[in-house]
Amino acid sequence: MNNTNISNKRNFLKISSSLLGSSLLAPWESFGQEKKADLGASQDATKRIAQYALSVRYDDLPEKIVNECLRAFVNFAGVTTGSCRHEAVDISIKSLAPVSKSNQATILGRKERFDILNAAFINGVSSHVFDFDDTHLVTNVHAAGPIASALLAYAEYRPVSGREFLTSFYLGIEMSIRLSNALHPGHAGVGWHVSGTTPTIGAAVAVGRLMGLTEQQMMWAIGLAASQPVGFRESFGSMNKSFNPGRAASSGLFSALLAKNNFTSSNQTIESRIGWANSLSLTRDYQEMLGDLGVRFETALDTYKPFACGIVIHPAIDAAIQLRNEYRLQPEQIKSILYKGNPMVLELTGKKTPQTGLEGKFSVYHSVAVALLNGKAGEKEYSDQIVLDPKTIAIRNKIEVAVDANIPKKSGDMTITLNDGRVLHQFIENAVGSVEKPMTNAQLNEKFHDLVDEVMPRKNTNQLLDASWKIHTMANVGKFPRLSVV
Amino acid sequence: MNNTNISNKRNFLKISSSLLGSSLLAPWESFGQEKKADLGASQDATKRIAQYALSVRYDDLPEKIVNECLRAFVNFAGVTTGSCRHEAVDISIKSLAPVSKSNQATILGRKERFDILNAAFINGVSSHVFDFDDTHLVTNVHAAGPIASALLAYAEYRPVSGREFLTSFYLGIEMSIRLSNALHPGHAGVGWHVSGTTPTIGAAVAVGRLMGLTEQQMMWAIGLAASQPVGFRESFGSMNKSFNPGRAASSGLFSALLAKNNFTSSNQTIESRIGWANSLSLTRDYQEMLGDLGVRFETALDTYKPFACGIVIHPAIDAAIQLRNEYRLQPEQIKSILYKGNPMVLELTGKKTPQTGLEGKFSVYHSVAVALLNGKAGEKEYSDQIVLDPKTIAIRNKIEVAVDANIPKKSGDMTITLNDGRVLHQFIENAVGSVEKPMTNAQLNEKFHDLVDEVMPRKNTNQLLDASWKIHTMANVGKFPRLSVV
Repeated sequence: MNNTNISNKRNFLKISSSLLGSSLLAPWESFGQEKKADLGASQDATKRIAQYALSVRYDDLPEKIVNECLRAFVNFAGVTTGSCRHEAVDISIKSLAPVSKSNQATILGRKERFDILNAAFINGVSSHVFDFDDTHLVTNVHAAGPIASALLAYAEYRPVSGREFLTSFYLGIEMSIRLSNALHPGHAGVGWHVSGTTPTIGAAVAVGRLMGLTEQQMMWAIGLAASQPVGFRESFGSMNKSFNPGRAASSGLFSALLAKNNFTSSNQTIESRIGWANSLSLTRDYQEMLGDLGVRFETALDTYKPFACGIVIHPAIDAAIQLRNEYRLQPEQIKSILYKGNPMVLELTGKKTPQTGLEGKFSVYHSVAVALLNGKAGEKEYSDQIVLDPKTIAIRNKIEVAVDANIPKKSGDMTITLNDGRVLHQFIENAVGSVEKPMTNAQLNEKFHDLVDEVMPRKNTNQLLDASWKIHTMANVGKFPRLSVV
Repeated sequence: MNNTNISNKRNFLKISSSLLGSSLLAPWESFGQEKKADLGASQDATKRIAQYALSVRYDDLPEKIVNECLRAFVNFAGVTTGSCRHEAVDISIKSLAPVSKSNQATILGRKERFDILNAAFINGVSSHVFDFDDTHLVTNVHAAGPIASALLAYAEYRPVSGREFLTSFYLGIEMSIRLSNALHPGHAGVGWHVSGTTPTIGAAVAVGRLMGLTEQQMMWAIGLAASQPVGFRESFGSMNKSFNPGRAASSGLFSALLAKNNFTSSNQTIESRIGWANSLSLTRDYQEMLGDLGVRFETALDTYKPFACGIVIHPAIDAAIQLRNEYRLQPEQIKSILYKGNPMVLELTGKKTPQTGLEGKFSVYHSVAVALLNGKAGEKEYSDQIVLDPKTIAIRNKIEVAVDANIPKKSGDMTITLNDGRVLHQFIENAVGSVEKPMTNAQLNEKFHDLVDEVMPRKNTNQLLDASWKIHTMANVGKFPRLSVV
C-alpha cells in the first residue's frame, strides 16, 4: 500500500461524499441525472472471487496484513466481549434460545451456548452494538465483526488452525471491503447499510474456504450469500443497525453450509444484469472489486475507533486529550474552550444539553468535556450517569464551537484559555484512529481493557487479550471463544 | 372483487410487461429515462401495515376469501408434500440437521424434524421447487408457500387454532401480494425475485399476529423483516430460486421472534427514503400497498397452476386436453397438430428436442405431446423418462407451432388433423388456471393426488387432503404437519 493509493482513496471518498449529499441522506433519485460510474465490467466476477478465495494462502500474506488482521481481531474481541451484556444481546439470547441447539458455539462473554448459526448472529450483533468496531473509511463498512462471528462459530464446530483462521479472516474482510467499494457510492446512496450487505458474501467465502468447498461450490455459496443482503440506513438509531452485520454473519455461514452439499445457485450472481451488483447499486466499479487481488490489500486501510462516538468529533476529542495530557490540566484551571471545526460537527453532533448516554454521542460538547476530565471517550464516558454528572456539565458549559467550511472534516482546532491567563492551542490535522494516524497497539490494548474489564476480572481480560494477539498461532481456534467466558 | 378491479389489474399488467421489455430481462438502467410511477405516497406505511395486521379478524373475511385461502392451502400442502423427496429438500435436510434442534417442527412428507426456523426454510424451499405453487399474476409472486411454511412451523411450537391460522395465512398472502404490486414493475425490473422479497414481511406479520405482538412490536417485526429481502431473478434455473421463498419464511419468523422481546427497529422502514421501498424498486405505488385494506382483497386474484410448466404454454396444453377428451383421441389417429400462439411461446418454450425433464418444461412441443397422451401435464409428465420416451417423441414430431403477435399471451388456437381426414379445432381465450377460468376444487384435488400419491399411500393422501380443506376448523393446527408423514 503506497501513499498514492491512499491518496486516490481519499479523493474517491471526497467525490463520494459530494454525490451522497452533505447529510448523507440523499435518496437514490438524486443519481438519476448523474453519469453512472460503471467502471470496468465483468463477465466472471463470481468465478474470480471464488478462485481467489480458494487460492489465497497464509504464506502469501504480507507481514503488514497479518498484523492488521491481528489488530482487527483484537479490536473485534474487545468490543464484542465488552458489549456482551447489552440489551440487544440479551434480547437475542432470550429470543433464540428456545429455538436453538445449546451446545455448539459461544456468545463471547456469555455462559449461554447456541447452534453455530444463531451464535454467529448474536456475536455479529454484539460486535456492532457499541458502534466501536473496525471501519474502512471509503464506505464505513465494518467488516471484521460479521466475518469473525461466522468464523469463530464454525471453529467451535470443526477444528480450525490459527493460520487457516487468520487467512480466512483476511479473505472475508478483504472481499467485504472490495465489494463495498465496488458499489460505492450508489449503494448507500440508494439506502443500503453496507455493513449488512457485503459481509454476507465475505462470511460465506471465509467459512467456505475452511470447509474445503470446490470452485463450483464456492460460486454457489457466493450466489446464495449474495441473495441475502441485509439492512437499510433507516435502521440507524435502533437495534436493527446491529442486526444487520449479525444477520450477515449467520446468512453467510448458512450459504456455505448448503453449498457444501451442492445446493446450487447461478455462477454469475454477482455480475449478472439481473443479479447482485446491478440490483443493489446505481454505480459499480469492478476494478475496485477485482483489481490486483493479492497485490493491493484494502485490509491495510482498516481503521479502529479510539472514541465511542461518530468520527466527525474525533479531532475535537484528540485535541482535548493532547492538551489535557501535555499541560496536566485540572478542570478548575479552565476558563473557556473554543473549538473550530467543519460545519458537519454541529450538524451531526450539536446537542448542547444531552440527557442520556446515547445523546452524549451526538454532542461535541459532552465529548470534549469527558476528554478533558478523563483523558478518554470510551463507552464508559457515554453512560447516562456521566452525561448528567454536574462535573461534566460544568466543563461542558465552558465550551464554544465555531464552524468553518474551510476546515476539513478530518481536522480541527482547539484553543483553551486558563484562569491564569495562559492560552493553549492544539491543531489536529488527522485525528488518532485515522488511516494517517492509526491507533497504536498499546492504544488498542487500552481500549480492550476499558471494554472487557467491565465484564470480567482483569486477569481474564489479560488472558483473552493475549490470546487475541496470538490467534494465528493457536492449534485449535475453537478454544478461543471459551476464554471470554468466566 | 368486481370486474372493474380485475380489468384494472390486467391493464396494469400490460403496462408493466412493456416496461420490463419483452424478454423480462431488461435491467434497471432502462428505467432511467422513464417517468417514475411514484403513485401515492406515505409517511406511515409501516404503521398502517402493523395496524391492519392487528385488526384483521376471521369474521371480517368474506366467505369468498376464506374459500380462496383454503384453495391456496390445499395447493400448498399438495405441492410441498409432493416435492418432499426433491434433491433441494434432501440437501437442505442434510446440511441443516447437524446445526438444528430436531424436535420442534415437521418437514412436510419427511420423518426428519427441525427447529422452527430451519423447518420454515426447508418447507419454503419445498413449496416452490416444482414451480407449481400459487401465483398472483400481476407480479408472479408465489405468496402462499413462505407464509404457510412459517405459520405451520410456529403452529407446532405454540398452539394455534384453525381460525387464527387461516386469518394469519390470509394476512400474510394479502400483504405479500400488495407489497409486490406496490413495487411493480421497477422491482423485478431491477433484478429482484419478488417471491423472496415481499413474503419475508408477509411471514413476519402473519406469525407476529399469532404471537400477540403489540403495535410497536409489529412495526419492529416489519422493519427487521423488510431488512432481509431475498433473491434475484438470476437465480432462475438453479436451486437458489426455491431458496428465496424458503429464506423468506425463516427470516420472517426470525424477525417476529426478536420483535416479541423488543428487539427494536425503525417505525418507518417501509416508507423511509433510505428504507425498503426506495432501496428495492425504481417505482412505488402506495395505493396498491395500502388502499382499501380489508375492502379490496388481492388474495381473491391468486391462481393455481394446473400444469407444471410456464404459464405461457398453458393455453396450448388446455386446448390439447380439451380436444383429447372431447374426441377420445388416440395417438395413432393423429396426423398433424398446428398450434398458433403469441411469439413469447417460442421465445420462452421453443425447445424442439428436450433431453431432460427440466428442458421439457421449456418445450411447447413436449408439453402438447404429453397433454395429448396423458390428458395432463403434471410433474410426472416432466420426468426425464417421459421426455425421452419414443411414444412422446413420436407425437412431438407431429407438432408445428406458428406465432402471431395478434394472439394475446393468455390465448391460443389449436388445429388437429386426423388420419381419417377430420380436422378438429379448439380456440382458448383464457386457459384453465387463469383468473377468468380458475381451477375447480375438483381439479385442485386431482392435482393434489397426482403429487402426493407419489410419496404416500392413497388413504393417507385422502386424509391429508381432507384435513387441508378443513384447516380452518382444526382446534390445533400444530397437528396438521404430522399427517403428511407416513
